[in-house]
Amino acid sequence: MRLLEERIAKDGRILPGDVLKLDSFLNYQIDVDLLMECAAEWYTMFKNEGITKILTIEASGIALACVCAQYFKVPVIYAKKSGFCNLPTDMLCSKIISYTHGRTYDIMVPKKFLEPNDKVLIVDDFISNGSTMKGLISIVEKSGATVVGAGVAVEKTYLKGADELRDKGYRIESLARIKSLDPLRGVEFT
Amino acid sequence: MRLLEERIAKDGRILPGDVLKLDSFLNYQIDVDLLMECAAEWYTMFKNEGITKILTIEASGIALACVCAQYFKVPVIYAKKSGFCNLPTDMLCSKIISYTHGRTYDIMVPKKFLEPNDKVLIVDDFISNGSTMKGLISIVEKSGATVVGAGVAVEKTYLKGADELRDKGYRIESLARIKSLDPLRGVEFT
Repeated sequence: MRLLEERIAKDGRILPGDVLKLDSFLNYQIDVDLLMECAAEWYTMFKNEGITKILTIEASGIALACVCAQYFKVPVIYAKKSGFCNLPTDMLCSKIISYTHGRTYDIMVPKKFLEPNDKVLIVDDFISNGSTMKGLISIVEKSGATVVGAGVAVEKTYLKGADELRDKGYRIESLARIKSLDPLRGVEFT
Repeated sequence: MRLLEERIAKDGRILPGDVLKLDSFLNYQIDVDLLMECAAEWYTMFKNEGITKILTIEASGIALACVCAQYFKVPVIYAKKSGFCNLPTDMLCSKIISYTHGRTYDIMVPKKFLEPNDKVLIVDDFISNGSTMKGLISIVEKSGATVVGAGVAVEKTYLKGADELRDKGYRIESLARIKSLDPLRGVEFT
């Protein structure tokens, strides 16, 4: 999606540790018009799939998911991050390793919000090594619901997280695909 | 706002410790249509005030703020919660005490996202003792920007946080005003 790539090239900041900061339009400060354009793309791709719920993860994913929900007319659910899953009888839990922070933590969603007949679109801002996405997929599948696919704003293609999931048959639709990130050369898209 | 009050009466759960759980439509699972109705109310109230930014706090405030932004056509900024403010030269920080958890923590926003000529609408889901709202107001005022007012979904009127701020001249517009919360009698609105 050219609009998103142009914005990343213009306003993204590359920091040490393979970090791409998009804090002027995607996290911290949010350009909701740009998010609407992203949501419109995913709506075109998934509108005939019978989506019943949109799942994301706090915090920045909530913005994307709420904007998507206005196209799909379905509820949003967001997973919370926690040190540990302390109510396993009521909760669907999964362990993830943050690519940015290197920390392991549990993510969770109350069981009551996902049912076996749900068809779920997962939405998130980034996919790097895919740990968060795998965790969200695992939560949906533990509930018996179906993962229809995922809409991701930014994919780091060199980290293979999305491709590994595609190889397993999941439909991962990213809108800006970054093949390299270098403090001197900037961002290169595929 | 009758629609929000009816939903709270129907789906809210009252837990020990003066906690009102609205996790089936406001946190965890989000009914974006209901949030649009809330945003429409605040837009009617504040549309002639020249709002340039909407400020909220992670995580659940992000949903309300992003929906509001579609009426006001301005960027959203959200404050992050942290154990401590570790970049005070780049950050606007404020200390708050969570009413629900009793914990003290810093909230912060990068200085670059608020400028002296900004006119800010603050949006949040709850106001109880007002600590979070005071923290958000303090962040705006430290930047030199103007707090035009605040839109809050649910006010616990018996805790006086909103009234204290009104007494100081702030415009706090809440959509459901709860005067008592009792596990047996349920929720009473003013």
